[in-house]
Amino acid sequence: MGSTKKTDPKTKLERGSLDNLLGYQLRRAQIKLFQHFKSSLAELNITPSQAGVLILIESNPGISQSALARAMEIERATLGETINDLQKKLWIERRKSPNDARSHALHLSSKGKTFMKKLHPAIDTHEQDVSDNLNAKEKRELLALLTKFNSI
Amino acid sequence: MGSTKKTDPKTKLERGSLDNLLGYQLRRAQIKLFQHFKSSLAELNITPSQAGVLILIESNPGISQSALARAMEIERATLGETINDLQKKLWIERRKSPNDARSHALHLSSKGKTFMKKLHPAIDTHEQDVSDNLNAKEKRELLALLTKFNSI
Repeated sequence: MGSTKKTDPKTKLERGSLDNLLGYQLRRAQIKLFQHFKSSLAELNITPSQAGVLILIESNPGISQSALARAMEIERATLGETINDLQKKLWIERRKSPNDARSHALHLSSKGKTFMKKLHPAIDTHEQDVSDNLNAKEKRELLALLTKFNSI
Repeated sequence: MGSTKKTDPKTKLERGSLDNLLGYQLRRAQIKLFQHFKSSLAELNITPSQAGVLILIESNPGISQSALARAMEIERATLGETINDLQKKLWIERRKSPNDARSHALHLSSKGKTFMKKLHPAIDTHEQDVSDNLNAKEKRELLALLTKFNSI
């Protein structure tokens, strides 16, 4: 009887091999994290990818858009939209690059610098809360394993 | 001197707090996995989300579209597109549900069943290869930690 499959789709779902796929669990984790970020940081009106770009510009004042695109591993077009959004919010400024007239150097505006003082603690709180299924040791392990998985 | 920041955007990037964010590492892992899936399964001409839906239909013959949407945690409209793609490829069939005339029961076609015999081993190979930075124990740990992170 142990091998009887539950096939009533209205009540219980048989996930087959899905649960044991890294790809499936990663996608679920990504969705959970994205949704938690959205609701947890709703007041700051910012997306995860905008936050990532702001942190990179903060850490690399004067970075070019193409260096950012490489760092974020996203399409230049997608990054272009994010940069435009951040400019509209007056958080960043595009200045002529001193090295290359065709390229722009990206900087936080002073409004952007003030915003970062709210953003960093908000992200820390979100990261703590979203992973409250895990204890501190498990969180460190998960981060270390993902970092190792991502290394080239 | 240890605290001197490298700020040359052309060569070395200062990632600031990004590397220690679960959100950032999860997003990178998701991108890596998605791209590897695409190239590794190019011959089968299938996306990760189509594969997920096929596996769920295989494991739950007769499942309704709304039960699938809940299981995949995706929008009904997005799932609708995936279902249409799978129908066009003749891998699945929509039959009238015996319980509810307004709803459709989803089944693998016989072509779909044959396809699954290629899909499963291809996914297994992809999952092995994409995580070859990790040893077997680390892979198990990563899967277990993600599953715990995802649990409600």
